[in-house]
Amino acid sequence: MAKEIKELNDREENYSQWYNDLVVKSDLAENSAVRGCMVIKPYGYSIWEKMQAILDKKFKETGHSNAYFPLFIPKSFFSKEASHVDGFAKEAAVVTHYRLRASEKGGIEVDPNAKLEEELIVRPTSETIIWHTYKNWIKSYRDLPLLINQWANVVRWEMRTRLFLRTAEFLWQEGHTAHATKEDAMAEAKKMMHVYEDFAQNYMALPVLTGTKSEHERFAGAEETFCIEALMQDGKALQTGTSHFLGQNFAKAFDVKFLNKENKEEYVWATSWGVSTRLMGALIMAHSDNNGLVLPPKLAPIQVIIVPIYKNEEQLEKINQRVEELTEKLSQKDIRYKYDNRDSQRPGFKFAEWELKGVPIRLAIGPNDYENKTWEIARRDNLTKETISNDIIISHIENLLEEIQNNIFQKALDFRTTHTYKADTFEEFKEILETKPGFILAHWDGTTETEEKIKEETKATIRLIPLTLILEEGKCIYSGKPSKFRVVFAKSY
Amino acid sequence: MAKEIKELNDREENYSQWYNDLVVKSDLAENSAVRGCMVIKPYGYSIWEKMQAILDKKFKETGHSNAYFPLFIPKSFFSKEASHVDGFAKEAAVVTHYRLRASEKGGIEVDPNAKLEEELIVRPTSETIIWHTYKNWIKSYRDLPLLINQWANVVRWEMRTRLFLRTAEFLWQEGHTAHATKEDAMAEAKKMMHVYEDFAQNYMALPVLTGTKSEHERFAGAEETFCIEALMQDGKALQTGTSHFLGQNFAKAFDVKFLNKENKEEYVWATSWGVSTRLMGALIMAHSDNNGLVLPPKLAPIQVIIVPIYKNEEQLEKINQRVEELTEKLSQKDIRYKYDNRDSQRPGFKFAEWELKGVPIRLAIGPNDYENKTWEIARRDNLTKETISNDIIISHIENLLEEIQNNIFQKALDFRTTHTYKADTFEEFKEILETKPGFILAHWDGTTETEEKIKEETKATIRLIPLTLILEEGKCIYSGKPSKFRVVFAKSY
Repeated sequence: MAKEIKELNDREENYSQWYNDLVVKSDLAENSAVRGCMVIKPYGYSIWEKMQAILDKKFKETGHSNAYFPLFIPKSFFSKEASHVDGFAKEAAVVTHYRLRASEKGGIEVDPNAKLEEELIVRPTSETIIWHTYKNWIKSYRDLPLLINQWANVVRWEMRTRLFLRTAEFLWQEGHTAHATKEDAMAEAKKMMHVYEDFAQNYMALPVLTGTKSEHERFAGAEETFCIEALMQDGKALQTGTSHFLGQNFAKAFDVKFLNKENKEEYVWATSWGVSTRLMGALIMAHSDNNGLVLPPKLAPIQVIIVPIYKNEEQLEKINQRVEELTEKLSQKDIRYKYDNRDSQRPGFKFAEWELKGVPIRLAIGPNDYENKTWEIARRDNLTKETISNDIIISHIENLLEEIQNNIFQKALDFRTTHTYKADTFEEFKEILETKPGFILAHWDGTTETEEKIKEETKATIRLIPLTLILEEGKCIYSGKPSKFRVVFAKSY
Repeated sequence: MAKEIKELNDREENYSQWYNDLVVKSDLAENSAVRGCMVIKPYGYSIWEKMQAILDKKFKETGHSNAYFPLFIPKSFFSKEASHVDGFAKEAAVVTHYRLRASEKGGIEVDPNAKLEEELIVRPTSETIIWHTYKNWIKSYRDLPLLINQWANVVRWEMRTRLFLRTAEFLWQEGHTAHATKEDAMAEAKKMMHVYEDFAQNYMALPVLTGTKSEHERFAGAEETFCIEALMQDGKALQTGTSHFLGQNFAKAFDVKFLNKENKEEYVWATSWGVSTRLMGALIMAHSDNNGLVLPPKLAPIQVIIVPIYKNEEQLEKINQRVEELTEKLSQKDIRYKYDNRDSQRPGFKFAEWELKGVPIRLAIGPNDYENKTWEIARRDNLTKETISNDIIISHIENLLEEIQNNIFQKALDFRTTHTYKADTFEEFKEILETKPGFILAHWDGTTETEEKIKEETKATIRLIPLTLILEEGKCIYSGKPSKFRVVFAKSY
């Protein structure tokens, strides 16, 4: 077992295999018996729970309430918003029957007499069913804004799936808000993008760029899509969260009008915004190394792992005593710890296991440490060790947790900085993609045609148009037409 | 609007209609566009969130971790456990296709080329997929016990649905644990029944009986089902939570063995246990009255509603100031309050609305209260009012919240006590059911045959066999055969 733990694929050699190995071996998730659906294991789920709790608090602080809408959506609902149907109704799980029966051959079979009149789609996203519902909830300007979020599972029948990054079923939250004016809706969409940015940077230790999507990359049914984009260690971008200004598209599709203060009927303005278990993929890919996960302390289920080193019961008893004094203080400080006193495993095995699982701080204590009143303290982020006096161990741990959180962020930011390039010609652009992938700032003529051609030839896409534009006269790297600012390209997940 | 709020159906006249009205009018939930599926509205969902948080804490304190398993279950899995298939695979949502396409007639249609090789069932409960997964997780006695819980949505294609009580899709938690011995598994199943009992009584203010189900009423695949049963105000019983000892049935069906300490292979022992959004139905039906909901303070999203009464801006400003002083102190005490300062509604409307929504305490403040430094304080549970000095208002509220919590429980307990009867003949039994429904303690000969006949003739079922048996020689009310103790009968939801 100890050997197996260290046998991750090398990150530099095969990033994709390294990622899959890591997710499974660190007990985060695994593939299930159902194609494309994953099992999120307890260790992985406990990280997701921390993410949920922090995000949920932020949503409530910004005035949102949670609610729950049906898992199923009548097929006809998808036809109501023209562009939405193309984007979402294609690869979907379709419920056609509502009963099984015993089969003559043994086993069970679908009962052909129990066919639904109208097929139901397992929700890939909930705009349609929610706007159908909002029609009855919104009558007057007094009912606005309506600020609702839903935590739910959704299904998109992806052909190529990867744990957390792209799975047929995934967990997410979807905010769906309704507003009296275009300005209010636009402000909401931007606000939620910033909530995601704050969460990514300050909790996930993940630096993100903020901006808008090109028309081509927008959410199906949106008039503007705001996004946060992060750079992974292989130089590919990962879209980490999106927030959409939906205009009046869904209000018109589902006939949702309100009486304004002047007693006139108007269509309602909408937004939707979401992040998913994909965040888990971003967290793993941005920070981990060949020894395993590297978790930012704020999201680590275990922040401090304590390993005893002893040769006999007498030594262990003394160590237990010292550990008990420590853990009592850790509890008081709300520091999440675990004492790994399994007698079935040797310390070396435990060290490797908790490294693999990304625990930020490891404390070891042996007979000498007991006598000297010290601890051996090791950092997961940079793998350094030092010996610290028991007198200052608690404050040392507190400071170190903060330092590690900051260091992980800084490391990811440095990586992004050194992997962000400017390209002024298409040749340069292609060379960067091949030799040193990352974000590429380049001029673009603003047309979908050019965007598609660049994608065809290089697989790179426009990740975003920066929120703060730096005006600069230039020429499109592909068409040579004039351009007023650079946009951000990259290959992506 | 103010009028509409009061127009609930009379609880005594039409209990069923009163319940439906109440759920919808108090903004807890409503029917959706999908048959049998409900929309849980923000106010209802915030109560469910409180329930979840408390239960989740209790599960973790008893050593359980959360995880997540797929929404879909391959059809063949259901055939693996013989009795389980009968109980669950019948009325289920079946996914047969994974793609839609544009229809020639316009709109979209199911793509016949995208038929699944094996149909997928939307989980009605997850024993099968989870035990299929456990096979790879459990190798040795060191992997046991495995204590896992899942918060999820499930679907059972019920023909007759009622908001919260019986819906096609509902939200729930399902615990699934694996143990090395029969004793451990049995102890776990009992422990979780007591966790549910504690939650029902001390948070929902709902007195419950604990016991086991008769063989006939057991969960499909269980060897023993523990349950908590509550009595509603119409004298019908509601099964509020169940905890199952599953023996080695699922371990055998999915071949889950472990090496014991003697290095011998054994099948694993299992439990599963769950409560659902049905708890919301129990909460509503047990306490509410013709004015609306009556929420126990521990689960009320708003514990104190504050309503200002004023004729002009000057009065309002003074009142606002006093309210601000109060709410600051309420926040410090973690008391959940809301200041209803809408100028679009009159105090009478607000009073009725918050009564309907079951807020435990209402504070009103007018110009006289401001001058006298007093508050008018009204209790939702018994609809009494008094005037309280501002000096002691905080401690008064604290005490009152506790008193209301206890009073609601006591009221429900008194109701149950006065609606629990003994019947010694079948005539007596039938008369009670017709004239004063409630729990009926009666002798039963222990056979499924008798149980089914009683159900056929009276619609009453055995709700439970009490956990603590009171031995008493008697004769079965139906067959006249000898019996050693009474069991609990009732009509039920």
